[in-house]
This record gives sequence, C-alpha cells and structure tokens, in this order.
Amino acid sequence: MKVTLLHNTPLWVDAKAIRKCWDSEDNSDSIDIASGRHEEVYGHADEAGPKDKALINKIGNKYKHASTLEHLSYNFDIDGISRACLQELARHRISSFSVKSSRYTLKELKSEDDFFPDGNFEYDADRARKFVLLTGNSTVDEATVISLNNLRNALVNGISNDYAKYCMPESYKTSLVWTVNARSLQNFLALRTNKAALWEIRELANNVFDAIPDEHKYLFEHCIYVEDTNG
Amino acid sequence: MKVTLLHNTPLWVDAKAIRKCWDSEDNSDSIDIASGRHEEVYGHADEAGPKDKALINKIGNKYKHASTLEHLSYNFDIDGISRACLQELARHRISSFSVKSSRYTLKELKSEDDFFPDGNFEYDADRARKFVLLTGNSTVDEATVISLNNLRNALVNGISNDYAKYCMPESYKTSLVWTVNARSLQNFLALRTNKAALWEIRELANNVFDAIPDEHKYLFEHCIYVEDTNG
Amino acid sequence: MKVTLLHNTPLWVDAKAIRKCWDSEDNSDSIDIASGRHEEVYGHADEAGPKDKALINKIGNKYKHASTLEHLSYNFDIDGISRACLQELARHRISSFSVKSSRYTLKELKSEDDFFPDGNFEYDADRARKFVLLTGNSTVDEATVISLNNLRNALVNGISNDYAKYCMPESYKTSLVWTVNARSLQNFLALRTNKAALWEIRELANNVFDAIPDEHKYLFEHCIYVEDTNG
Amino acid sequence: MKVTLLHNTPLWVDAKAIRKCWDSEDNSDSIDIASGRHEEVYGHADEAGPKDKALINKIGNKYKHASTLEHLSYNFDIDGISRACLQELARHRISSFSVKSSRYTLKELKSEDDFFPDGNFEYDADRARKFVLLTGNSTVDEATVISLNNLRNALVNGISNDYAKYCMPESYKTSLVWTVNARSLQNFLALRTNKAALWEIRELANNVFDAIPDEHKYLFEHCIYVEDTNG
Repeated sequence: MKVTLLHNTPLWVDAKAIRKCWDSEDNSDSIDIASGRHEEVYGHADEAGPKDKALINKIGNKYKHASTLEHLSYNFDIDGISRACLQELARHRISSFSVKSSRYTLKELKSEDDFFPDGNFEYDADRARKFVLLTGNSTVDEATVISLNNLRNALVNGISNDYAKYCMPESYKTSLVWTVNARSLQNFLALRTNKAALWEIRELANNVFDAIPDEHKYLFEHCIYVEDTNG
Repeated sequence: MKVTLLHNTPLWVDAKAIRKCWDSEDNSDSIDIASGRHEEVYGHADEAGPKDKALINKIGNKYKHASTLEHLSYNFDIDGISRACLQELARHRISSFSVKSSRYTLKELKSEDDFFPDGNFEYDADRARKFVLLTGNSTVDEATVISLNNLRNALVNGISNDYAKYCMPESYKTSLVWTVNARSLQNFLALRTNKAALWEIRELANNVFDAIPDEHKYLFEHCIYVEDTNG
Repeated sequence: MKVTLLHNTPLWVDAKAIRKCWDSEDNSDSIDIASGRHEEVYGHADEAGPKDKALINKIGNKYKHASTLEHLSYNFDIDGISRACLQELARHRISSFSVKSSRYTLKELKSEDDFFPDGNFEYDADRARKFVLLTGNSTVDEATVISLNNLRNALVNGISNDYAKYCMPESYKTSLVWTVNARSLQNFLALRTNKAALWEIRELANNVFDAIPDEHKYLFEHCIYVEDTNG
Repeated sequence: MKVTLLHNTPLWVDAKAIRKCWDSEDNSDSIDIASGRHEEVYGHADEAGPKDKALINKIGNKYKHASTLEHLSYNFDIDGISRACLQELARHRISSFSVKSSRYTLKELKSEDDFFPDGNFEYDADRARKFVLLTGNSTVDEATVISLNNLRNALVNGISNDYAKYCMPESYKTSLVWTVNARSLQNFLALRTNKAALWEIRELANNVFDAIPDEHKYLFEHCIYVEDTNG
C-alpha cells in the first residue's frame, strides 16, 4: 500500500482558532507566517511559531478541548489497501471518502490474461499483486487468486460488473482519497495502531502517521500504540 | 435478506419538537397520546393525532426544515445482505452500525462439510445460501461457492480468521443493527431506491421502506423511486 | 428549568446490536422482552435482562466500543434554560435541536404590562421570571429586567422581532426538544457536570441525568463529576 | 462584520478524489499543479486545470454526488457578528467552531468608561460599536447600549463573568474561526442567503461567499439567493 499526503491545513490556522477563544490573537508568534512573509525573512516555511505550536498541543491534547483540532484537515491518497481493510476504514464516519468504484472499474480485469497461465497450477504472483493483496499465507493467497481468476473469467464472458463483483475476494485492492480532521484522525490512530486491530489496518494507520507532515506529528504521537517489549 | 424494525420514536415526539419552534404545543392533538391515555379512550394506539401528523410532513418535507425530522430514530435489524452491499450501506455515515464481525465469527464455517460434496462438480446450494448471497447468475454463483469452499478449507486447516478473511467473497452474508434518523433515512431511500443504484441495495432500500411503520410511511413516500412504465 | 424525558430506545435493542458483532443473539436474556411477552409473565416492564444489561456496559463502556451506544436515542423536553445556556448546548453537534424561535415568538411580550409597574424602581420578579432567568445576583437581575422591559417596549412600539431581538438579554428563557444518543450524551454529561462548566449548564446536565430512565442510569454514572469533599 | 478566508484546500485535491471513483486520474489536467510545477511554467497559480474544474462541478453539483465536495475545507475568520447571529450559525453542525468565550473575555469591558458619558442621555456610539452590533433602529440600539452599560457596571463592581454574562444583550459582538467543507457550506449559503433568513446572517452568508476564493466561486453560485426584481 502507499499513503501520500495531498494537502493539509497549516498549523497557524489552528493557533488562530484557539486564540479566538481567549481573544489572545495578538500573542501569536505566527503572524509573519500567516501573512506569507515568514519564508522570505527566515528562509524556511514553518507552519506556526513555537509558542503557537505548544498552544495547540496544550489546548487540544492536554486540556482536551478537542474541537479545536477540527480546523486541521488532511487529504490522504491511499492506494492499494484491500476492500477488507476498506470495510473497517469506512466505520470512521467523521471523515470523507472518494473510493475507486468496483461497479465502474472492474472492467480493468477484462484485458488481463488468465492468472494461471498455460493451465498451470501456479499463478503469476506479480500480475495478481496488481489487483489483490497477497497476505503471505500461501493457502489464502492461492484461494484469492483463484477467486480473482474466476472474477476475470466472468467479466471476459460478458457478465456485468454489478453481478460479477459478488465473487470478488475481499483481498481485491482499492484506492481512495480520504479526508479527515485532526480530531477524528487521532481517534483513528489510537484505535487502529492498537495491537487488537486487524494487521492490515494497523499497517495503514502507521503509514498514515508517517505521511502526516513532520511538523504536525507532535499532535498525534501519543495516539500511536507502542508494544511493551519488556520481559 | 430480512429487514425487521426493532424500535422507533413515536410521531408525537416529533410533533412536540416542531411545535417548540413556534411555541404552539397547546395546539397539539396528540396530548392524550403523549400522556399514554389515548389507547384506553379510543381503543387503538395512534402515534400522533392527524393534525400533528400533517404538521410533521408540512414542516419537515414541504418547508424543508429537515432537522426537525432528526428526532425520529429507527432501529432496523438487517439480516442476510452481502458484504458487497455493506460496503455501500456504510457510506451513509449519519447512522450507526453494529455489524457481525468476520474477524470474530468466520469460525462458523469450520464445522461445515465441503460445499462440493463427494468430489462433485455441483455445489450444495441450500447449504451455501446460508453463508453467501447467490445472485442467480450461474457463473458468478459457482465462483462464489468455490471461494466459500476455499475459505472453509483455510479455516479447517487452522488459518486464523484475520488471514482467511482475505479470500472471502463479497457475496458473503452479514447481519447488522442499523440505527438511522428520519432525515438520513430519507436520503438513503432517495439514493438507493433509484434505478442507478446497485440491485441489492435497491432491494434493501425497498425492504427498509416496507419495514417502516405504516403510520410513518407518509413521511418517506416521496423519496421512493418509481419507474416510469409508460411507453 | 424543567427537563422531561419524552422517549427513549429500550435497552434490549442495544443488547441485540452488540450481540450482532459476535453472532451471539441466542445468548440474550431479553428475548421475551423484545417480543413483548415479558410484562405479562413477570408483571413488570424491564427493558433488558440482567445479562444483556451487563453486556452493554462491558462493551460500550469498559471495552470502549462506544459506537454500540449510539443505538440508544433519548428525546428530552428542556424548558426554561437561558439563551446563554443554549449557546453552550448548541456546541454539542452530534444531537438534534428544535428550539423556540425568538424570531417567531417574541411577540409574546407584547401583551405584557410594564415590568416596572407604576413607574416603580422595583420590578415584578414573578412576572419577569416567566421570561428571563434570574441568577440570584441582584445587580445582574435588575439589569436583566431593565433589558426585558426595553425589549417589551420596543415590541409594543411595533418594532419587528428581527430587530427587537438584538436587545434581548442572554438570560431570556427558551425551550427545546433535544435528541441525543447515549454516546454523545456521555460526552455531554462528562464535560458539563464538571466543576469547570458554567453553573447553569451544570444544572442542566444534572437535570438531564436525573431525567434518564433509572434503568439506564448505570451507563452514565461514571460520567458524572463528583466533587471531592475530603479535606 | 469582517469575513476573511484563512486557508482552503486547493481544487486539484478534489479533482483527484473524484477521479479515484472512475480510476481516471491519468486524465487529470492538474498534474503539473499538484506537483507544484505549474506556477514556474505558466506564471500563475491555478488550483486546478479547466477540465478538472468542470469535472468537480459536474459530479459534485449536477450529478449530486455531493460527498465528493467534502474534501474541500475552508477556514474563515469571522469577526464582529452578534451573538444573536452566532445562535443561528451554530445550528450548522457539520462544521467546526472556535469562538471568543464570553466567560473568559468579558473583562474587556471593565476598563471602559461609562457609555453614557457625563450622565448624558446620549451614548457614545463609536465606542459602543466596538462591543455591540448597532442595527440602525434607534429604539433597539438605545436599549442595547443601556444593556451594555449595565453589563459594564456589573463587571466594574466585581461581578464574575459567569453571572454578569446573563444581562449581556444578544447584540454583543463575537469573533470566531469557522471551518466548513464545501458540501456543508453549500447548505449554509442556500439557507442563509434566502430572503426568509435573518438579515444579519444573510449579510454574513453573502460575506462568506465573497470571501470564497474566486476560483472556487463557480461551485457555490447556484446556492446564492437572488431576489426577483421584475415587476
């Protein structure tokens, strides 16, 4: 899977929002950043001053005034997760999804050759991997590719996507743009990096964390599950 | 599939909510209903008086003051839709889902016999139907049962649900309690009874409409897509 | 202020929802309740069996699977809070509001006599209290009734509600039906019974808790702030 | 009042999201923009190519696939609306609010001189206007400044914000950062530019529309109420 950040709200916006509550906008150290003059003066593009960054963490995280974190929106491009994983991701309802539609795109399989070429018992893993997530478990992966191949056959035989999709394995890969604010993202990271989470969505959650801009990571670090490796 | 209504908010609650806006609670003709004395007097259990019912429709639908419809909550027991259909249902984010977890329940397949008994090429459709949705398309359905059988084999061989589930076909049946308010339900019915919707979710939407209490149906009728059969 | 529960989803619905996840509906001890036969057998109207009640608490609260609590919806009739308090209540966005509209109802003041009768310096507190919340602070309350009286004068002089409402004091009383699910209600109670909360919304939160059916209170008790009175 | 846009998601992000559904990302004409190379080539900073812009409008508006518009987030700085207007704005629950708190900031009045200087019957309108919205109706505005002055007196006399705020007039000015996605913003603009809306929130809605980046306005124009001025 591949997770890329497409865009995010800069931190100074959130600092400004928080300062509204106490009418303390004049104390901001992001004013030159907000006005777009920071980079020319300092030569780098910070998203907020250090005082403002500390404020966001204090109010949003330590004081649990979590609604202040909603002003920060993140757009992620998530490519190559399975539809099994999508089933779980979709439960995070305070976020927005635009997902590759199986109804409109399954025809992509029509032009593929048989995934068990020449009547072989062995499948072409590299070609299969373009369409399905292989788990590393050989029994499951073989079953997955048999499904994929049967799905392909159905499409080649002219069956419409709306029927053929019913024999699609949940390993089938999908792709989406996922937009989520910092508050809902914290909830996602806390639940889905946890060791109780399904292995693939744990991987997704960790990849999403990696894709968060470095300057923003301090707002999310406390949500990331860390295995206790002692004794 | 089977859709059953478990519970719903009675209409007089919504009439009371609407009357708050104009401070017209005294004009309600549901007062004896609200106080629980209606049935003993009239011998039947209306949920609101006729004037109040007309008011809900006028304000919530005709005047498009849609937030007034949110006070009405419906709990549906939905049994036997496919996980393909769940993928679509889950996009209706203003609603609540408690869904049969494949991670916790796939073991149900372990005690099943082979779905292609005695090495036959023909599958036991009645037994398969307990677990997967058969579409009526023989190619798709055969592929679906091959997947089901491979999934069963993986589980019988001791592979954990968290890996085995990746070769599960999207036709696999699931079950959920779905809670939704009248406003979000209108949106669901309008989008999903439409002829552009996937056939299974159209069937679900029509079944959900049928499960709405008769006394409430007048609030939703205008959302139901009706095919133009002229010419 | 007065808080009355109008309706709520019964607990067995939520137990059924939770049991969906593990496919354990057969273990429910609410089946006779769900089917409406409980009362005739036992002579009282429990909303769920003891095993099911414990399950809701275990999953929803202890295991923090909070979405399972969303199936329980509560409709409250809240009467006589100030518009200052409404400003805070309205921030609980995962809930539904139908509120007495000042734009449509301010005319109620037109038929009132002067609140400082006979040119007195003393106001008629009993009559004022029908429209504004008196705080017990005499300076504030006098200022509030002066505002109320000026508002009345403006309306008597034919000024439309849409302009007159700008001189309305925030102590002005309002009335609403508020619908909220158990998950959002827990959040409300935790934040608003806290000693840091505004005194009136603390009172509201405690009154809302009191109005929750006794059988449901165990789901919310841990949210209620209790002052440490030791030492 | 003053409405300023602080930040917005660029249009190419939304085009990418929509293209996910049909797997048509390769048809995008925003690729050089997304990669940050557009400005250096063309000398101006378009947010998306013309084909992508048309696509957003077609899918999000004409095809009513409204969820695709949720990827676009707007952060507005709204300054100087009344708390009467805030009461209405707060009903738009699919958005985020960080608002100047009367509980924390009312002390700003303590250092103000009497608004009726020298025992005059005439108030200092310029000074009052810093704190309250004057409507142009002299009766209402005088009542408003009497309230403001009484509020000031209460604070000067040491009454805490939490009590003094109850005699605050709804004309009192506030300030907030408001974050809203394009879908919810369309709903706001349609409801609040309408002639049935309160005059101040109509003004706010029109100012919000003006503050939307010119390049985005085409997505919202159809929501703006235009009075029919023909005979």
